[in-house]
Amino acid sequence: MSTDYWWQQALPVPDMAFAEAAGQRQLQLTKPPGSLGQLEQLAAQLAACQRRRDPQLQRVRICVFAGDHGVVEEGVSAFPQSVTASMLANFAAGGAAISVLADQWGAELRLVNLGLVGGPCGLPGVEDLQLMPGTDNFAEQPAMPLEVCLAALQAGREQAQAAAAAGCQLLIGGEMGIGNTSSACALASALLQLPVAELVGPGTGLQGAALAHKAAVIERALALHGPALQGPLDALQRLGGLEIAALAGAFLGAAEQRMAVLVDGYITTAAALCAVRLNPQCRPWLLFSHRSAEPGHVALLQALQAQPLLDLGMRLGEGSGAAVALPILRSACALHNRMATFAEAGVAGPDA
Amino acid sequence: MSTDYWWQQALPVPDMAFAEAAGQRQLQLTKPPGSLGQLEQLAAQLAACQRRRDPQLQRVRICVFAGDHGVVEEGVSAFPQSVTASMLANFAAGGAAISVLADQWGAELRLVNLGLVGGPCGLPGVEDLQLMPGTDNFAEQPAMPLEVCLAALQAGREQAQAAAAAGCQLLIGGEMGIGNTSSACALASALLQLPVAELVGPGTGLQGAALAHKAAVIERALALHGPALQGPLDALQRLGGLEIAALAGAFLGAAEQRMAVLVDGYITTAAALCAVRLNPQCRPWLLFSHRSAEPGHVALLQALQAQPLLDLGMRLGEGSGAAVALPILRSACALHNRMATFAEAGVAGPDA
Repeated sequence: MSTDYWWQQALPVPDMAFAEAAGQRQLQLTKPPGSLGQLEQLAAQLAACQRRRDPQLQRVRICVFAGDHGVVEEGVSAFPQSVTASMLANFAAGGAAISVLADQWGAELRLVNLGLVGGPCGLPGVEDLQLMPGTDNFAEQPAMPLEVCLAALQAGREQAQAAAAAGCQLLIGGEMGIGNTSSACALASALLQLPVAELVGPGTGLQGAALAHKAAVIERALALHGPALQGPLDALQRLGGLEIAALAGAFLGAAEQRMAVLVDGYITTAAALCAVRLNPQCRPWLLFSHRSAEPGHVALLQALQAQPLLDLGMRLGEGSGAAVALPILRSACALHNRMATFAEAGVAGPDA
Repeated sequence: MSTDYWWQQALPVPDMAFAEAAGQRQLQLTKPPGSLGQLEQLAAQLAACQRRRDPQLQRVRICVFAGDHGVVEEGVSAFPQSVTASMLANFAAGGAAISVLADQWGAELRLVNLGLVGGPCGLPGVEDLQLMPGTDNFAEQPAMPLEVCLAALQAGREQAQAAAAAGCQLLIGGEMGIGNTSSACALASALLQLPVAELVGPGTGLQGAALAHKAAVIERALALHGPALQGPLDALQRLGGLEIAALAGAFLGAAEQRMAVLVDGYITTAAALCAVRLNPQCRPWLLFSHRSAEPGHVALLQALQAQPLLDLGMRLGEGSGAAVALPILRSACALHNRMATFAEAGVAGPDA
């Protein structure tokens, strides 16, 4: 592998002096020490990422990346492939889960088409990159040429750059792509060296024989590519999706920009694993929002030593789990920044 | 026991026709069926409580009840008793966790002093009921006279009535009272018939010998009252706190008013158990926000067959866990009310 890919540079490191100061402040706030649980660590992590005593989350950007998957021709999804494009239109029109949540919580929503089978979507409000007309069927051949994979990574990076330039304090990545749980499962199996049977799940709703067929298709793909799945870039190019590569690029790009990321569910965590394998220094910039009902998600979270905030049985994607978790981060910041100290409030501390 | 206590009347029942209609609507929304997990059930439960197709949570009221505990003279808390009153002042001044969270999420905050050792607090913004100067030491005698217990239940009920009259759509109960994890533990042990050792926890921060001493004090109290702890009213009067009785009254009063409740943590769930034992028909009006780090909370949740939304290691009380969970309920409502259906968005459904 060439050594001059952009993501191979040294990435910034969150400033742990701010995390330590945040921990000291938490001990002074009018509450028993540690009684805000994970909210205390969240505030410290955001303080370190933002290099400020009072971490802020007013400006949050959600980038949803969409792409079609050639492997759908194998019959691995309960929904028809046309749904990728029509859901992208639904995102733009405001009727999808992520549109409602972005509006509810005042997050900026950006929509990017990486490649649909039907060509550019031409929708207002969608950035129409259309790198190829959906991936190729990864059970038969590599999902995408290397140069397309690199372009998708770069497209994600540019979204992170644009978010940082706009002053956003947090990036959420979402995805839409009928068939992409198959791609995520194949990537997880290849990168974690775990059997497909332990990772495969219903996606949009497969059961029984249809689910067994999905597993068999993924196993066939892994056997086909075999030793060619050497590193994360190879795996991404051969098994990934355009939107998954863009997410990986967005996460690496966010780290480059010193911007924290709130990771969504199964697909997004597979992309996060790719990003961390491409450059482990991006890991401290990632926060994890929820545990998906998709069974393979647990293995991905464990591999990333991630402690997600929510476990509500969600399995929708789009960035929806992260958007539902966003207010928890905002609560953590509000408490950290605005609670009175024992001294300020004239309250006696423990054992006083 | 007399049969004419107000909470013994038949309570309203959530209208399950609205829950069923909500479930039908969820199947039409542009997402795989069931993919919003617990958020789908939350929307249905709120629809049933509110008897409307589009459940609303714009107006949420948080009532924090404060009271002192005579058992503190046994040395069962890491904080001095004066902290109950000074934290009540901190709530009123806006510096406490619940003040910050109420402001952050636009909830109305009501503060009620049921009884402080130092007498009425005289603070602006605090309803100063002062039923007695803190409870008596329940390790030596009943915590309160029956008429005080009834007055505290009624005070809670009146807060629920006032919230309903103001048009609030959800009630959150919070509490402040140094020593109240001892009271909650004693109530849980008496009502669940479980050993103190399985339920006792650090409260504001006890460890080691201090924690063992707290357990011994509670065991002594249970032995002292013995068979007199017959029903929930007896247990509440002998082992409870003024704020715990008020919370139980508020939950029963909320059910009376057809208003859903979001229950907070350990103390509040002990109050919820008292309320459910006083009248099981209040149970369907209760939603549970989080699993506290206080070890006895799990047993209370299990006894109430409650599935809390969050598990963030919080153990602060004040209503803070419920306030952090509130946005999850709002996400559930927003998604339910505002997502497009497959027909509206022109998206093909599963297997189309």
